[in-house]
Amino acid sequence: MTAINKIAVIGGGVIGGGWIARFLQNGINVTVFDPATDAKEKIEAVLANADIAAQNLAIANSPKPGNLEYCGTIEQAVVDVLLIVEAVPERLETKKSVYDEIESAAPTQALIASSTSGLLPTELQNNLINPDRLLVAHPFNPVYLLPLVELVGGKQTSSETIEKAKHFYTGIGMRPLHVRKEIDAFIADRFLEAVWREALWLVKDGIATTQEIDDAIIYGFGLRWAQMGLFETYRVAGGDKGMRHFIDQFGPCLSLPWTKLMDVPELTDELSQTITDQSDAQSGHYSIRELEQIRDKNLVGILKALRSNQWGAGKTLAGYEESLSTDNVEN
Amino acid sequence: MTAINKIAVIGGGVIGGGWIARFLQNGINVTVFDPATDAKEKIEAVLANADIAAQNLAIANSPKPGNLEYCGTIEQAVVDVLLIVEAVPERLETKKSVYDEIESAAPTQALIASSTSGLLPTELQNNLINPDRLLVAHPFNPVYLLPLVELVGGKQTSSETIEKAKHFYTGIGMRPLHVRKEIDAFIADRFLEAVWREALWLVKDGIATTQEIDDAIIYGFGLRWAQMGLFETYRVAGGDKGMRHFIDQFGPCLSLPWTKLMDVPELTDELSQTITDQSDAQSGHYSIRELEQIRDKNLVGILKALRSNQWGAGKTLAGYEESLSTDNVEN
Repeated sequence: MTAINKIAVIGGGVIGGGWIARFLQNGINVTVFDPATDAKEKIEAVLANADIAAQNLAIANSPKPGNLEYCGTIEQAVVDVLLIVEAVPERLETKKSVYDEIESAAPTQALIASSTSGLLPTELQNNLINPDRLLVAHPFNPVYLLPLVELVGGKQTSSETIEKAKHFYTGIGMRPLHVRKEIDAFIADRFLEAVWREALWLVKDGIATTQEIDDAIIYGFGLRWAQMGLFETYRVAGGDKGMRHFIDQFGPCLSLPWTKLMDVPELTDELSQTITDQSDAQSGHYSIRELEQIRDKNLVGILKALRSNQWGAGKTLAGYEESLSTDNVEN
Repeated sequence: MTAINKIAVIGGGVIGGGWIARFLQNGINVTVFDPATDAKEKIEAVLANADIAAQNLAIANSPKPGNLEYCGTIEQAVVDVLLIVEAVPERLETKKSVYDEIESAAPTQALIASSTSGLLPTELQNNLINPDRLLVAHPFNPVYLLPLVELVGGKQTSSETIEKAKHFYTGIGMRPLHVRKEIDAFIADRFLEAVWREALWLVKDGIATTQEIDDAIIYGFGLRWAQMGLFETYRVAGGDKGMRHFIDQFGPCLSLPWTKLMDVPELTDELSQTITDQSDAQSGHYSIRELEQIRDKNLVGILKALRSNQWGAGKTLAGYEESLSTDNVEN
């Protein structure tokens, strides 16, 4: 397989910028197209955060960073690349029009990877000339630190496209998760959605504030889930008698009407304002840039702890470092 | 307020054992009653894990550990304590009969704290002679490492009881979260329940395995939630335009029927077996004891990283260390 040593990123927001950072840090050259007047400024802010994170993470044998080229048109950005990452707003028509421009100028063998968290690849690809090369590669913010990327093919996506993508994302230190059935919200966002709805009810009914909900997460199950997931945690809770024992104990609780998820809470202006006010009270004394840097510092600390334990994302990171070392010997 | 220097724990399972470990590590003497023939063996296994965790966590100025006394009756365990922690199975009648025995022998001013995750304090206290002293103090496994404890009062719980409990749990390094309205599942477990239901659907419909679901958690939002919760994470994602901007963008997605939470998935024998088999394939090559030690090592690493960043659970830990240092100077 030809190595991907140049990538076009279309759209330079938080996600596009995060992709650019991860690619550059892997020694890959990047072209970017974003029509916003402040695109360059925003991208550079993300890159500055990502540089600090990379220094703190201290990846052994990391390659010489790639170059970033700002392009005035999509055509110019995609003309000689083998991967195009689309990270434009979540509107089907916007994305389709971007794909038209991509296909008119990019090499036919170039993969097109959409960062969408909300649209299905079958919908995205149905007007493409070469639909087999489109997939969803859905990352998580901050893209330069979080390893998860959900790979989802549409009805016309080839298995070769999925395999190429798996190989590529693994090579840049990520943990590709192939979502085998094309469903709304893929996998991770279904959970986020379930938690978000429940949180809206709690705020709406005045049971808890945004701060209290965040505390309920970060001092308890958040710490668990950074290193073991739902099922593995419950397996351990089941003790020596195992998973079956846990389910037998816990299962009956499921018939209780605990969650309020049967309805979709209406996101009224009043509720939006309550959340906004509570969030301001909770974190308004930090700027977003400060919060980003706090977040990154925490994530780097957690990733390093897990790296020395060779577990979860830390194991991925350790394996990535090892692969970089091998690559450098090969070169 | 009189310091609580001796505590009775009724029930020595995973939660009771975890409580015992946290109390002993705080220099508090503990009496325990558990009628199971293997209770001592189980408790000692938890204490052994907790000791390793404490050594690795290296708390500065930690006090000389308390003594543990195994008692043959509830009466003997509670006779001269100021706090009784109830951690018996989640059956209302079992708990009520335990409370009868407690009240017949314990000092009237002793608090009674139930570890229940499923029963409401108003139900628990309605036959008590002194119902004002009962509250729910719901911890998270492993109790000796996770700081969250949800405090919930019933209709008859006094505000003095809640205040005493807040003060006490803070003093042993925990993060008490007062749940101001008495609702099923309190706060944190509502989220766990929402995620659990969604996960059952994904496994049942063959969309993802237990391993894939756990990976979707630990490589992505689990890392986020160890250090920033739902709302703070989204605030950051909203960028400089803030929380309101995020809600305006994300809110409309809520009307999509993404989750399957409108129904309760039936936990058939077949689904239980699928989960059990997938969990065995995922983690069956580790014993539960090994998984517990891996989990604890990861949690200690994460807590240390957050401690050096003075954030979230790490800030709680740093504050706790400081209070221990002050206590020791006072003594």
